[in-house]
Amino acid sequence: MERTLIADIIKKTDEKVRIFGWVNTRRDHGKIVFLDIYDRSGLAQVVAESSLSGNLHPQDVVCIEGKVAKRPEKLINPNLETGTVEIQAERIEILSKAEELPFDMGGKDLDLQLPTLLDYRSLTLRHPKVREIFRVQEVVIDAFRDLLKKKGFTEFQSPVIIPQTAEGGAEVFEVKYFDTTAYLAQSPQFYKQIMVGVFERVFTVNKTLRAEPSVTTRHLTEVTTLDAEMGFISSWEEIMETVEEVIKYILERVEKECVKALNYYGVTIPKVPQSIPRLKLREAQEIIFQRTGIDHRRESDLDPEDEREITRWAQEEKNSDLVFITHYPVSKRPFYTSEDPKDPGYTLSFDLIGRGTEWLTGGQRINNMDLLLERAKERNVDIKKSELYIQAFRFGLPPEGGFSFGSERIVMHILGLANIREASLFPRDMERVDVRLSTLK
Amino acid sequence: MERTLIADIIKKTDEKVRIFGWVNTRRDHGKIVFLDIYDRSGLAQVVAESSLSGNLHPQDVVCIEGKVAKRPEKLINPNLETGTVEIQAERIEILSKAEELPFDMGGKDLDLQLPTLLDYRSLTLRHPKVREIFRVQEVVIDAFRDLLKKKGFTEFQSPVIIPQTAEGGAEVFEVKYFDTTAYLAQSPQFYKQIMVGVFERVFTVNKTLRAEPSVTTRHLTEVTTLDAEMGFISSWEEIMETVEEVIKYILERVEKECVKALNYYGVTIPKVPQSIPRLKLREAQEIIFQRTGIDHRRESDLDPEDEREITRWAQEEKNSDLVFITHYPVSKRPFYTSEDPKDPGYTLSFDLIGRGTEWLTGGQRINNMDLLLERAKERNVDIKKSELYIQAFRFGLPPEGGFSFGSERIVMHILGLANIREASLFPRDMERVDVRLSTLK
Repeated sequence: MERTLIADIIKKTDEKVRIFGWVNTRRDHGKIVFLDIYDRSGLAQVVAESSLSGNLHPQDVVCIEGKVAKRPEKLINPNLETGTVEIQAERIEILSKAEELPFDMGGKDLDLQLPTLLDYRSLTLRHPKVREIFRVQEVVIDAFRDLLKKKGFTEFQSPVIIPQTAEGGAEVFEVKYFDTTAYLAQSPQFYKQIMVGVFERVFTVNKTLRAEPSVTTRHLTEVTTLDAEMGFISSWEEIMETVEEVIKYILERVEKECVKALNYYGVTIPKVPQSIPRLKLREAQEIIFQRTGIDHRRESDLDPEDEREITRWAQEEKNSDLVFITHYPVSKRPFYTSEDPKDPGYTLSFDLIGRGTEWLTGGQRINNMDLLLERAKERNVDIKKSELYIQAFRFGLPPEGGFSFGSERIVMHILGLANIREASLFPRDMERVDVRLSTLK
Repeated sequence: MERTLIADIIKKTDEKVRIFGWVNTRRDHGKIVFLDIYDRSGLAQVVAESSLSGNLHPQDVVCIEGKVAKRPEKLINPNLETGTVEIQAERIEILSKAEELPFDMGGKDLDLQLPTLLDYRSLTLRHPKVREIFRVQEVVIDAFRDLLKKKGFTEFQSPVIIPQTAEGGAEVFEVKYFDTTAYLAQSPQFYKQIMVGVFERVFTVNKTLRAEPSVTTRHLTEVTTLDAEMGFISSWEEIMETVEEVIKYILERVEKECVKALNYYGVTIPKVPQSIPRLKLREAQEIIFQRTGIDHRRESDLDPEDEREITRWAQEEKNSDLVFITHYPVSKRPFYTSEDPKDPGYTLSFDLIGRGTEWLTGGQRINNMDLLLERAKERNVDIKKSELYIQAFRFGLPPEGGFSFGSERIVMHILGLANIREASLFPRDMERVDVRLSTLK
């Protein structure tokens, strides 16, 4: 007999079916056992005689044959897609036996501390509330890809192993590369700029690796990053307009396709108005000062409490959960960032702040080679080592800019997760790579 | 004035337009200069007075305003999509000036030796014959993703940094990971098997990194790999059927969407019959022996000439450019490969051979933990270190299998490229990471 996906049994009342899946829960009622069985499509109740269900327990992998029967009216479960029917088991085969579970996986929640959640990752990922996080990640990445393709962007594969660390910083991983040393890419920045010379508009979905020496709730050493870069921009504001389109489309798709996840976490999609409010950093600092009396007007960046306060302002005054902060000082942005000719000392750059924290960063880049080399020199960036990057400018690059954001971080903020590790299938940080590193020593 | 994409000028005869792009070629005819200008959409001829075109030369980035004019009948270029019109320039602005090119980029071919092709990668990628290779790569990856999503597969993000090298081999890169050592993933194999426990059917598009100590035309140290894994298979043949669907769909999409690339390389899509021929390794060796007298019937694998010979057989006898070779000996396949109960000593595994070389590899996996641990032990694989992998089996995994192939390799074989480095935007090998490593010492 062919397999029937569990979601499809409601179309097969009174027919005999064969389902495959995992045991979710088992409830014994004397001679009768109720089993909840799930597969990738859904969950169904199976009724079996206790002789048939033997010692079946949660996570056992089974093949069950039986008849689909309508449930009596009062036993219908309206919260379950297959809740109008059940399967009366005639044959149960165990395909793979699971060990006794270390905790209950059958409830709506999985109330575990983070270390346990991660120590048992291959098991905890199977809990629907955990699993659905990664459907959101899939939809976020798909939506990013889908929208940009429609806008004439080409996807490219950016390398992970790089020859130098021109973008600088100590937080770079070293790789033993035959008899020399190579590094892991912290961002595809240089490559996406090179690719503007090839396809004009490009994007890449990429692992970025950063030796973050901190163990905060917001940092991982390995992140799946979404990067876009576009040439022939009419102005730097075109980049922000593209970001608006991308973010709105991502949120729309999540709202439509990730209903289960939004319900599990009891959240709604962030509010985004027609146009996301835009404030220069100094304007934001002035607003914060006016609202709170806290004077950060001479700071070169927002601190976390500033980010939360400016979000409150955007929510209250602009009915928006998101706000762009622009014009960070030259010294706070990478050397390749364009300065605003109308506002010297400040850059054509932006961060998108969402629900109190940074979601995304972007800006216009310098496309004049001489100026780029000068800026690199001022900042002590040994850019000459990045030969292919310089080469792209030697042979003509148009005015361009782009943006970048981490898929884990945006998923974390959409679902309101407390820790970014929950938004990574196999989170890596300075203490853990699958297993706790302390156990490896 | 708004930008008009070059491909759209044919709809704007007698109108004034503004185009942005790069100078491809310049031909001086006394007071008149003919410029070929291209952008991401296409290429057009611009006619300008020499006073207007100044010292413009190839790869300069320009903005040109002018009138779109019908060409006289005899000057129509049928090989160019915009060949019925030209732009009569009224204003030319240089947005970015390029250096003198080290070689001619204006011809249909780019006849360079590989080292030069790679030393000037940021420039050579702009040549249409080179650029189109990467549209093929994009379509291959998109088609893989598209088809599998339709078949109920979920995409997941597999990690690059891993704690151990359980799959073994010396060809693994070491990473200095804080005060310990981590490794770079040579394949997402263990993770995709874990994910079968979560989503049943999964795939991942991933960078895989391998310290290949050879400098052949077929090996890179960094590859973009396409991996799929599926649970609840009815038999291992279901995996091959899925491969057939995937490969056919990829080739169909390339045929339809990559006409330019196929024309540049003068190739056609490989022939694939309704069902790709399947031979056990021993049957293939017997056929080769019968056809050539070369007796490799006791070898445990095909050598390169065997692969070419069995391809010739498939072409001649089965009208197929592709052939599956199955049932490699247990010793030649990874420890987690299922043995065929009906053919002891041989595995439920396959390679797909295309146009004389291996394209893809796959098979059914062992899903019984005790057997898996036993097989690992026999092969001296220290699998206990891969705690999360074992955990997936401890808590129940269904019968499953999958397949894996490199996007660069399939692109190389579709287009008939001589060297896999041509199919990688920024190829990495033991001698080069963007720049020749010898120059870094």
